[in-house]
Amino acid sequence: MSTQNGQSVVRWEGTETNGKRGHGAGVRVHRIEIETTKRVEIRDLTELVQGIVRDAGVDAGLVTVSTMHTTTAVFVNEPQSALLDDVQQMLERLAPRGEDWKHNDSRYSDCDRHNADSHLRAIMLGNSVSLQVSEGTLTMGQWQRVLMAELDGPRKRQLVLQVLAP
Amino acid sequence: MSTQNGQSVVRWEGTETNGKRGHGAGVRVHRIEIETTKRVEIRDLTELVQGIVRDAGVDAGLVTVSTMHTTTAVFVNEPQSALLDDVQQMLERLAPRGEDWKHNDSRYSDCDRHNADSHLRAIMLGNSVSLQVSEGTLTMGQWQRVLMAELDGPRKRQLVLQVLAP
Amino acid sequence: MSTQNGQSVVRWEGTETNGKRGHGAGVRVHRIEIETTKRVEIRDLTELVQGIVRDAGVDAGLVTVSTMHTTTAVFVNEPQSALLDDVQQMLERLAPRGEDWKHNDSRYSDCDRHNADSHLRAIMLGNSVSLQVSEGTLTMGQWQRVLMAELDGPRKRQLVLQVLAP
Repeated sequence: MSTQNGQSVVRWEGTETNGKRGHGAGVRVHRIEIETTKRVEIRDLTELVQGIVRDAGVDAGLVTVSTMHTTTAVFVNEPQSALLDDVQQMLERLAPRGEDWKHNDSRYSDCDRHNADSHLRAIMLGNSVSLQVSEGTLTMGQWQRVLMAELDGPRKRQLVLQVLAP
Repeated sequence: MSTQNGQSVVRWEGTETNGKRGHGAGVRVHRIEIETTKRVEIRDLTELVQGIVRDAGVDAGLVTVSTMHTTTAVFVNEPQSALLDDVQQMLERLAPRGEDWKHNDSRYSDCDRHNADSHLRAIMLGNSVSLQVSEGTLTMGQWQRVLMAELDGPRKRQLVLQVLAP
Repeated sequence: MSTQNGQSVVRWEGTETNGKRGHGAGVRVHRIEIETTKRVEIRDLTELVQGIVRDAGVDAGLVTVSTMHTTTAVFVNEPQSALLDDVQQMLERLAPRGEDWKHNDSRYSDCDRHNADSHLRAIMLGNSVSLQVSEGTLTMGQWQRVLMAELDGPRKRQLVLQVLAP
């Protein structure tokens, strides 16, 4: 598993801004589309998110990065290639792909993607992160990055990013 | 394990609104009570949350759904019955109920509910979720629902929902 | 593992306040430094967080408590000593320290801290929590506390706390 920053196919569409506009207050929403390339893959969204925050012109506030899919996740950590392989190893132990999950059993489930492991891993990793914005930038430690986990790819995935400033 | 939407006994009490009222800005708080019926159970809160957001009349903002209990959790995924059984299977592997946890040992703990597994599962699942509101509705994907996990029921459980609009 | 509230060496530095100041609206940021004393340790931040919220003079809003480190985590539960030992036991099963993680292997990783387990546990526990503020205090249940998990200590750790009020 590796991050694919340079080759990542991401596109952000438009900006809906609402709420009070005075002094930069309000809520801005950006939709992001990521095209993943493997069944399990972790992508670094940090530069994309930082760019959106910068363009929003918000000085201080809260960014919520939310995935729209039940078989993807968003979390914060260090995207070192070796560590990302270890994440996959831990997830495989936590929710083994080949286990006889009921979600994968046609007697109990009408889903034929055999992705029970994907749902379970997504639940444990989380569907969103909240990031602080201060002086126009994300408040993150030296090694922290915003990461999206694809768990049932490859597919086109939607995330929604909200920048909220009081 | 199954969701119990129609028969769920939920009640939301009152609304405290504070902060600036102009243009719908401010913070609204709703308390929710859910009466669970099993030791481990997952309930779908989505319609309840959506109704509260709609009644709040907020166009854009952030909703925080927080449980008040250390043996319950809130998370987002798909409440398919078979998958919820798989969630239970994964949680049992992660934190087995019958393991000799110190929290369940009267030599070390004054809690006699034998619910160490409940606390541990709650920690891993999470105590709150943050949901975006846009155009008056929750920004969620097609299969996503807001779910509450009861892990040491059956009991009456309190959740607090905050709608924040700048 | 135990919580160390009285002896904890914590310091909060300054307050940056920006955004609109009218009626207490805006964003306040506080940096916290915690000096941990063991490799794996859980600290109770609740009183510190509550004090910052009180001093901020915010009546209603949202607090985001974020760790700046990829080998620490923030979560909410009950800091009973026996339960915290159980948390350690669960984390050791989830991500065993002695497993042959690639992150700890000099052939694949330039990190020599042998802390793959720390990263993995931090990912699963989470990097931040969102806490509601109502009537000037944290909206938390009777047994809930804001907890920080040190997973690769002992070290000086930075957390950033944001109080956002619309």
